Amino acid sequence: MVKTICIFGVGLIGGSLACGLRKKNWCTSIIGIDVQQQAINEAVKLNVIDAGYASVENCPVVPDIVVIAVPVLKVANVFQQLMPWIDKCKAITDVSSAKQSVIDDFNQVFPGETSHCFVPGHPIAGREKSGVSAAIDDLFADRKVILTPIEQTNKDSLKLVINMWQQVGATVEQLNAQEHDKILAATSHLPHALAFSLVHCLSTQSHTQEIFRYAAGGFADFTRIASSDPTLWRDICLANREELLNALSHFDASLQQLHDGLEARNGNALEEIFINAKNARDKYTDR
Amino acid sequence: MVKTICIFGVGLIGGSLACGLRKKNWCTSIIGIDVQQQAINEAVKLNVIDAGYASVENCPVVPDIVVIAVPVLKVANVFQQLMPWIDKCKAITDVSSAKQSVIDDFNQVFPGETSHCFVPGHPIAGREKSGVSAAIDDLFADRKVILTPIEQTNKDSLKLVINMWQQVGATVEQLNAQEHDKILAATSHLPHALAFSLVHCLSTQSHTQEIFRYAAGGFADFTRIASSDPTLWRDICLANREELLNALSHFDASLQQLHDGLEARNGNALEEIFINAKNARDKYTDR
Repeated sequence: MVKTICIFGVGLIGGSLACGLRKKNWCTSIIGIDVQQQAINEAVKLNVIDAGYASVENCPVVPDIVVIAVPVLKVANVFQQLMPWIDKCKAITDVSSAKQSVIDDFNQVFPGETSHCFVPGHPIAGREKSGVSAAIDDLFADRKVILTPIEQTNKDSLKLVINMWQQVGATVEQLNAQEHDKILAATSHLPHALAFSLVHCLSTQSHTQEIFRYAAGGFADFTRIASSDPTLWRDICLANREELLNALSHFDASLQQLHDGLEARNGNALEEIFINAKNARDKYTDR
Repeated sequence: MVKTICIFGVGLIGGSLACGLRKKNWCTSIIGIDVQQQAINEAVKLNVIDAGYASVENCPVVPDIVVIAVPVLKVANVFQQLMPWIDKCKAITDVSSAKQSVIDDFNQVFPGETSHCFVPGHPIAGREKSGVSAAIDDLFADRKVILTPIEQTNKDSLKLVINMWQQVGATVEQLNAQEHDKILAATSHLPHALAFSLVHCLSTQSHTQEIFRYAAGGFADFTRIASSDPTLWRDICLANREELLNALSHFDASLQQLHDGLEARNGNALEEIFINAKNARDKYTDR
C-alpha cells in the first residue's frame, strides 16, 4: 500500500495525476510542494492535495513516491532539494517532455549512484490550459505514458511507477531516452514550433485583423497548440534542443520541396507530396 | 422565386449547398452537371439533386442560377461550356478558394463584357471528407461566404447570390479579389501547405511507425488538414501561387527566427515568439 505521494509542481499535469489517484484511493495522502503559495492554496481548496509546502525542508513526512511535475529546466533544482530523500523514497519520477536532459541532470546531482529509485517518465497528455484549476481526473485515461528507465533504475521503483500510471488509466510503455526525444521532437515539439511560428508570423503582418477575422475551423485546429504555455514550451525546446534542430532541418527540406514545386508550377510534384501526406495520416491516425 | 439551380460539380461543397437549399425549398428544382456519371448517380440516389447531366449540351433547361463547384483549375473549362447560358441566367457564381485566377479565367472566356451575371464567391467551409456522400445540409450554417464582385458584376445577380447563401445560414461579406487571395493564403493555403509538408516529412523518415504510434491529440488536430483532398489542394496552391509564395516567405522568416533563437540557446527570443503567438491566438480566436 502506498502511503504518501508528493507532487512537485501542482499544475495541470501534477494536479491531474493527484485527482486521478485520489479518485482511485490508491494512496493515503497526497501532498504538494510548490514555490508558488497561490498554487498550493488553490490545490488545497480544490481538494487536489491534502497539504502543501514551499520546499522539502518544510515537509514533515518522507513520501513513498515523488512525482516531479515542474517545467523541464527546473527539474535539476528539484533533484538538489531531493538529496535528503533519495535513499528513503520508493520511487522518484518526473513528467518532462524531454528525457535525456533530465537524466543528465540527475546524474550530475547524484553522480556515481549504482542503483537508485529514479524512473524518468513522460505522460503523452496535456491541454492548452495550464495551472491546477485546469486539472481533471481523467487526463491520462487511454493515454500513453513513456518511461525511459536507465541501467541504474531499480526494478521495484519501475514497477511502482508503472502501477501508479495504470491506476489513472494510462498505457505504460518503455523506450530509451534518445528514441523518446527523437520521436517527441517529431510529433510534438516540431508541431508546436510550427504552430507558434505561424501565428507569430501572421500576427506581425499589416493585415493581422482581417487574417484572423476570416480564419475558419481548419485554422483553429491547426493553431490550437499555439495557445500553449509559452514558458513551458521555451524550456521544452531548450531541453530537447538538438533533436528539435534535427527535426526542423528535416522539415525545412520538406517545405523547400513544396516551395520548389510551387515556384516551378509543377503540379505533379505538389500532388505527390500531398498524396503521400494524406496516405500517411489516414493510415496512422484515426482521429 | 428561383426555379432551377444548376450545380456544376456535385461534390462536398456543391452537394452541401444543394442539400441546404432543398431543405429551405428555396427553388423548384436542383440539377447537377458532372463529368463523373457516378457522382450524378450518387447525388440523385441521395436525393441531393433532381436530375444530372454530363454537360450543358445535354441539359434540357436553362437554370436561373449556376453554381460552379469544380476544382479551381477546371473553372475555365466550365466558363467555356457556359457560353450558351451567359446572357440567359440570372446569376453565375463559383466557390473557388482563389478568386483572382477565376476572374482572369472569366475575362479570358468572355472578353469585353461590360455587364454580366458572374459573381465570384468563396464559402469558408469544408470538411476533410470529400465527395457528394460527405455533403451535409448545414455545412454553411454560421460560416462566412466571401463574394468578390468586380465592376462588371450586375447588382441583381449579386443580390441573388447573397440571398442564396443566406438561405443556408451563411454570413455574406464582400472583399476585393486580391485582399481575399492574400488573406486566404495566410489562413488556409499556408496552413495546408505546412500540414502536408510536416506529415510528408515524418512519413519519409526511418522511424515513421514509431512517430505516428506516439502521436497524441495535439498532433492529430495539427495535421487534420493534411487529410484533405490532394488534387483539390494542388490546384488551389497553383491558382493562388503568388500569394502562397509570399506567405511561405513570411513564414520562412518567422521560422528562421525561432531556429536562430534555438541554435543560440536564447530562451528570451523563443519566449518572445511564443508569447506573441499565444496572445494573438487567444485574442482573435475563441475556439
